[in-house]
Amino acid sequence: MTPQSEDFSAWYNELVFKAELVDRGPVKGTMVIRPYGYRLWELLQADLDGRIKETGHQNAYFPLLIPESYLKREADHVEGFAPELAVVTHAGGKELEEKLVIRPTSETIIGEMMSKWISSHRDLPMLLNQWANVVRWEMRPRMFLRTTEFLWQEGHTAHADEADAMRETMLALGLYSATAREMAAMPVIEGEKTPGERFAGAVRTFTIEGMMRDGRALQAGTSHYMGTNFARAFDITYAGEDGNLALCHTVSWGMSTRMIGGVIMTHGDDKGLVLPPRLAPYQVVIVPIGRGDQAAEVAAAASKLARRLADAGIRTHVDDRPQLSPGFKFNDWELRGVPIRLELGPRDLAAGTAVMARRLGAAKEPIPLDGAPARLATELEAFQAFLLERATVFRGEHTVTTDSWEEFEAAVASGWARALHCGTPECEDDIKAQTAATARCIPLDGEPESGPCIRCGRPSAYGKRVIFGRSY
Amino acid sequence: MTPQSEDFSAWYNELVFKAELVDRGPVKGTMVIRPYGYRLWELLQADLDGRIKETGHQNAYFPLLIPESYLKREADHVEGFAPELAVVTHAGGKELEEKLVIRPTSETIIGEMMSKWISSHRDLPMLLNQWANVVRWEMRPRMFLRTTEFLWQEGHTAHADEADAMRETMLALGLYSATAREMAAMPVIEGEKTPGERFAGAVRTFTIEGMMRDGRALQAGTSHYMGTNFARAFDITYAGEDGNLALCHTVSWGMSTRMIGGVIMTHGDDKGLVLPPRLAPYQVVIVPIGRGDQAAEVAAAASKLARRLADAGIRTHVDDRPQLSPGFKFNDWELRGVPIRLELGPRDLAAGTAVMARRLGAAKEPIPLDGAPARLATELEAFQAFLLERATVFRGEHTVTTDSWEEFEAAVASGWARALHCGTPECEDDIKAQTAATARCIPLDGEPESGPCIRCGRPSAYGKRVIFGRSY
Repeated sequence: MTPQSEDFSAWYNELVFKAELVDRGPVKGTMVIRPYGYRLWELLQADLDGRIKETGHQNAYFPLLIPESYLKREADHVEGFAPELAVVTHAGGKELEEKLVIRPTSETIIGEMMSKWISSHRDLPMLLNQWANVVRWEMRPRMFLRTTEFLWQEGHTAHADEADAMRETMLALGLYSATAREMAAMPVIEGEKTPGERFAGAVRTFTIEGMMRDGRALQAGTSHYMGTNFARAFDITYAGEDGNLALCHTVSWGMSTRMIGGVIMTHGDDKGLVLPPRLAPYQVVIVPIGRGDQAAEVAAAASKLARRLADAGIRTHVDDRPQLSPGFKFNDWELRGVPIRLELGPRDLAAGTAVMARRLGAAKEPIPLDGAPARLATELEAFQAFLLERATVFRGEHTVTTDSWEEFEAAVASGWARALHCGTPECEDDIKAQTAATARCIPLDGEPESGPCIRCGRPSAYGKRVIFGRSY
Repeated sequence: MTPQSEDFSAWYNELVFKAELVDRGPVKGTMVIRPYGYRLWELLQADLDGRIKETGHQNAYFPLLIPESYLKREADHVEGFAPELAVVTHAGGKELEEKLVIRPTSETIIGEMMSKWISSHRDLPMLLNQWANVVRWEMRPRMFLRTTEFLWQEGHTAHADEADAMRETMLALGLYSATAREMAAMPVIEGEKTPGERFAGAVRTFTIEGMMRDGRALQAGTSHYMGTNFARAFDITYAGEDGNLALCHTVSWGMSTRMIGGVIMTHGDDKGLVLPPRLAPYQVVIVPIGRGDQAAEVAAAASKLARRLADAGIRTHVDDRPQLSPGFKFNDWELRGVPIRLELGPRDLAAGTAVMARRLGAAKEPIPLDGAPARLATELEAFQAFLLERATVFRGEHTVTTDSWEEFEAAVASGWARALHCGTPECEDDIKAQTAATARCIPLDGEPESGPCIRCGRPSAYGKRVIFGRSY
């Protein structure tokens, strides 16, 4: 495999196939998610779905096919999505009277339904979410990061006023941040997008941004306050306690299979994937080592150990493929990013131990089979924490707070720069043209600060520093 | 609501909207699944997904869009699905070189990928499943039963030989049967379809059939042995232990949101839905009854009770809508099919009891708040068993074993007939023309029997009786 240091993109593109996460679909830009990759998605999904439900949202399902006219009702929205649409013109053997688009996102069709369902202030807030596939035609596809079809959840909520809608916008961002940190061990920055980077149709867009091991930023989830734009376009109104009709304020938020790309690029190395234990399809893989007469005894001990670990809630797999050597298996599971490998041979069995090899860090060491479940649970938690800490340190080492253009240019070549900016789109464009870096976000936790713009010297906007970096 | 006895179809069509299970999508034949309906799907899905995984299948995800040419590779398959296809002709602002169809089912695209992934007998069996949406253009849509887009799982597996493939076909049928009986309380019949009712491209098709309360049959899940038809069309081959290349035998099986229609029509009555507890979004609803000074005390007691029930694993909801009367709420939760309602007022509180009202059967009765979780768990299990038993008895009462054409005609007017049949498609067509009934299946557990065909008098086929009935 190409080393990261030589060509990070090539490393990524080779790894996703070698680790059997994905395969190419027959239609350009589409992706087949193979079982090992899909399991990552299921585990991420289960975590986020739990958080979504705990905070009072309900799942629902809206149709894939949307009349073309719906998209045109919100001017910015159609302008943003028109170039990426897939269009159904024929169905049931006939040409359709009105063309249908495959949903690129569902604000329009959900807006239409909300206008039917909401009539009184008692119906608010309406807190919906759906897990679905969406299609956005992609000219430069990249597995997980930009594919013509992808899987995601999209939260869509309606509120009585701006304050309640903004609370929801920030709540959703917090759910994403928690899933990213706690499941994916990705120490993301929460922040607001600059006006030029907003979602098509939004009043304010918030994002979580993670730093990948090549220093680039990945937008890993977004939450949008739509104001009354969609409520006006789809007539989502309610009668207040005073009986007067008012427009709802709506919010939408999405996280997608793109997160898997983030996990790969946050933790992976030249040997392959490095998976955070909470997200790993197999947290522990046992490789039995034994030939001839001893093979059966070792195999029996391996499956007994696997059962004990599984009973303790550890996702465990025994690699009993007879045709492959232990060395091949070790490399294979390193490639697939399994947090902990246990080697079990006749000598280990006699000593009542197994050899533990962590995917990163310390050297191999024997651990007693007695008490192995508790020990491994501790090791897995420690590994989870280690990955988050390592990524946090890495991000710190690759982020520069600067007021000098030369330092800025150097910083965004290998990481992020925290700089003051004038807030004009033209100046953002100029920075992008010079350095390929864009404004990633205005971090929520940034200290109040002002001064001249890093690029043009005009007075800074936003009252704090902006994070710039190259992005995926 | 229209009573079942007056017009069963009207009853169904009104109920699905009134109970807020669904709404109409803007595109003809599409369905919005509202939160209460979607929760039924999630609970069904969780149960079936567990069974699918326990039996060694892995979930994966394949693209929505399939090149039109793929469908044409298997002649029967394209003939069966061509009239129902939705076709994408334009995407990314351009006309496509090759038209794409939205998957009506995924045998073709999964076959193409299997041909890449399978090379040796060691790769077999390959046991895949996906949860997905599919589109089949529907001329006579009916919520849940026949919609232009629906949600389902489709299992797709490849095997070394017919014996292994047939084992899989029957295993999948058994999973469906178990989910139908144990979750949905639907006592389905497992059987094989007659040749005229096979899936497009299959060698053998198996089904589970449930009887609805109007006596009609609902096909609630199917499992297909494809022989080597798709393996030949997509070149799915493997090298055996002897090194020779051979075609795989493939299997596919699907269960969909149609099952929810089955639940509604198996158990529902003139008051509304009747939900089996294991599938009910809310198993117990508590209605606090108290005005003025007592309202706060009752509300506090209701939420305390709800917490105790939730801790015991009972899905509980407190209906604290202030603007609605208790009577309205009672009707509303009956309409929505909640298995057990608890009424809690000041006098009940003083007595340390709540009034329990089951959705069916016995009269209201007070139950002690002490020990309520255990008591309700028992009641819910009993209610689940009661529904299965009631549906089994109903089916028995509406199934006639007959060798007389007059009895046959009477039987299929209000239920099923078990009859001998010659096995020719022309005779099946004739029966359908005369009675609107079709051959639902050749039951797996049928006793060996033969004799003259119920319709034409020729010698019977299949070696056993066939179940006939009108169907959805």
